[in-house]
Amino acid sequence: MRKMNSHTIYMQQALNKAWQYQGVTYPNPAVGALIVCNNEIIALEAHQKAGTSHAEVLALIQAYETLSGETISFDRFDAHQAHEFLYTLPQNFFAECIVYVTLEPCSHVGKTPSCASLLAHIQPKKVVIATLDPIKGHDGGMKRLQEQGIAVEVGVCEAEAKALIEPFMIWQQRAFVLFKIAQTSNGKIGGGYLSSKESLTHVHQLRSVCTRMVIGGNTVRVDRPTLDCRFTGDKAPDITIYSREDNFDRDIPLFAVPNREVVIGDRIDLNTPSFILVEGGGGMLRALGDKIDWVLQYQTPKFSSHDSSYPVDMALTFLHQNSKGVDVMLWSRKL
Amino acid sequence: MRKMNSHTIYMQQALNKAWQYQGVTYPNPAVGALIVCNNEIIALEAHQKAGTSHAEVLALIQAYETLSGETISFDRFDAHQAHEFLYTLPQNFFAECIVYVTLEPCSHVGKTPSCASLLAHIQPKKVVIATLDPIKGHDGGMKRLQEQGIAVEVGVCEAEAKALIEPFMIWQQRAFVLFKIAQTSNGKIGGGYLSSKESLTHVHQLRSVCTRMVIGGNTVRVDRPTLDCRFTGDKAPDITIYSREDNFDRDIPLFAVPNREVVIGDRIDLNTPSFILVEGGGGMLRALGDKIDWVLQYQTPKFSSHDSSYPVDMALTFLHQNSKGVDVMLWSRKL
Repeated sequence: MRKMNSHTIYMQQALNKAWQYQGVTYPNPAVGALIVCNNEIIALEAHQKAGTSHAEVLALIQAYETLSGETISFDRFDAHQAHEFLYTLPQNFFAECIVYVTLEPCSHVGKTPSCASLLAHIQPKKVVIATLDPIKGHDGGMKRLQEQGIAVEVGVCEAEAKALIEPFMIWQQRAFVLFKIAQTSNGKIGGGYLSSKESLTHVHQLRSVCTRMVIGGNTVRVDRPTLDCRFTGDKAPDITIYSREDNFDRDIPLFAVPNREVVIGDRIDLNTPSFILVEGGGGMLRALGDKIDWVLQYQTPKFSSHDSSYPVDMALTFLHQNSKGVDVMLWSRKL
Repeated sequence: MRKMNSHTIYMQQALNKAWQYQGVTYPNPAVGALIVCNNEIIALEAHQKAGTSHAEVLALIQAYETLSGETISFDRFDAHQAHEFLYTLPQNFFAECIVYVTLEPCSHVGKTPSCASLLAHIQPKKVVIATLDPIKGHDGGMKRLQEQGIAVEVGVCEAEAKALIEPFMIWQQRAFVLFKIAQTSNGKIGGGYLSSKESLTHVHQLRSVCTRMVIGGNTVRVDRPTLDCRFTGDKAPDITIYSREDNFDRDIPLFAVPNREVVIGDRIDLNTPSFILVEGGGGMLRALGDKIDWVLQYQTPKFSSHDSSYPVDMALTFLHQNSKGVDVMLWSRKL
């Protein structure tokens, strides 16, 4: 039979969970974690937002709740409180647990304490890692675990885990450019909102964390958008309207959003490590062309006879697909 | 935490496997099975073709191979041989195995022996069933297992399992109409073959089992197709060219395929239990409209500036998506 075991299936679940937060963890990588205890999955979590608890920590808290039947009373996303709490548990509490994590647990102390140190203290039965952290200075987590005598296995679903952190690898070096598209299942756009509430929330999460949004000039003229983050309540992103000429009606709502910089021009800084989120029509997709790293499609479950689409030639590789409410969310790499 | 356990994850794998053969098992339902032994997944299989071994049997054979390290020397798809072989194994051979199956094991003897009787003999540790067989006369499998003292759990991922067998439920009563579409990721069609080899093979499998193919008159005139099953080597389907007028050039390759009936007309028998596979363009999709049950999209990983698309208004519900080679395959129900 095709090589397949529980490790693969568990890690695949952790990867799928992480993809749900792809992009929104910027500048951190998307990471998922799953915990198995006596052959039952007792936790499945993903890192959700930079500066908050990492995937392993959220999973350990969830595992604690499942095993103890208690509910914690503090904010689980507060990494310092979560680490502190987990250090107070009896040292054999997680002795029967296997921790699956899509990326090597962090060894350094940044905005949050070190996950490798926490796991080394907690002494789970085993830690299974999909891929080691390729960033120099971030690695060493595996070694710390092994030094404490914890069984570690590395390389389960490694190729998938590397695709998951590709944006993270890019935005360490230069701008990661994500072109976001919302269309019907037959590739039509326009005619008002297409996407599910879950898709719109995800878009607003991306907008709230990106370094800068780039929007096509034509989209601004025609759609007169606001481009804020009202679905999540976060600060609206700074915007570059991609256009050589400044002939935009200042009554267009996006200009009225407080605490936002709006630049009009056709230059985008691609050299600085950053996350550029692009929205726009076919002209914009064509204009950016090779500057695009990935395309994110929200596909809504209907066919439409609307005229507009993205009539552009572009080769892609599909990387991941998952449901987002009633929509399907499709991630692909531009070839 | 959200309710989730190993049962759910294992059953989801069996469901995903079954979707790979959706439609091609006609007139049988799509069914998947997974076997866990001492917490390792040792088999994952699906029913592939009517008249051949059912999912549980293929999974038991695979489990035998994994546990014994031996490879069977007979055709595993020959249900009679497979059942016979499994009956010869020591009765405690599968004692530590949990069998997950997306549909209640069959109790009746049809083209193949009864899977419920086989499982009752084999005495696995437990059988987990997603949904009971809703067809009168097909049920009773669970009861037979319980009578033999086997632990049975029913209802894990039941809603998903019911969606999986929806075509089967329909083609018991009347024609199940599946409209097949191949398009780029931005909804464009035309410009030669779009799909991966794996997608094309799946289409040819569907063609080989369907009761009748219906093809749009315009597609016949423009594409001059063959519409055979050369990727699988099976008999080509009978065809209805959906057109009021018979003005087709008899040099079009589809007319030259041996052992095929070609009917030209605009009537399709929807009352007889059957499986109607439809291919065609936007006009055909519009013409059939409410007669369509499900839409199957093969989506190829590229954008194209080609003119053609399916400019039709139609509301859908996405049911399942999975990879098919480099493509994504999307199943949806017409609302």
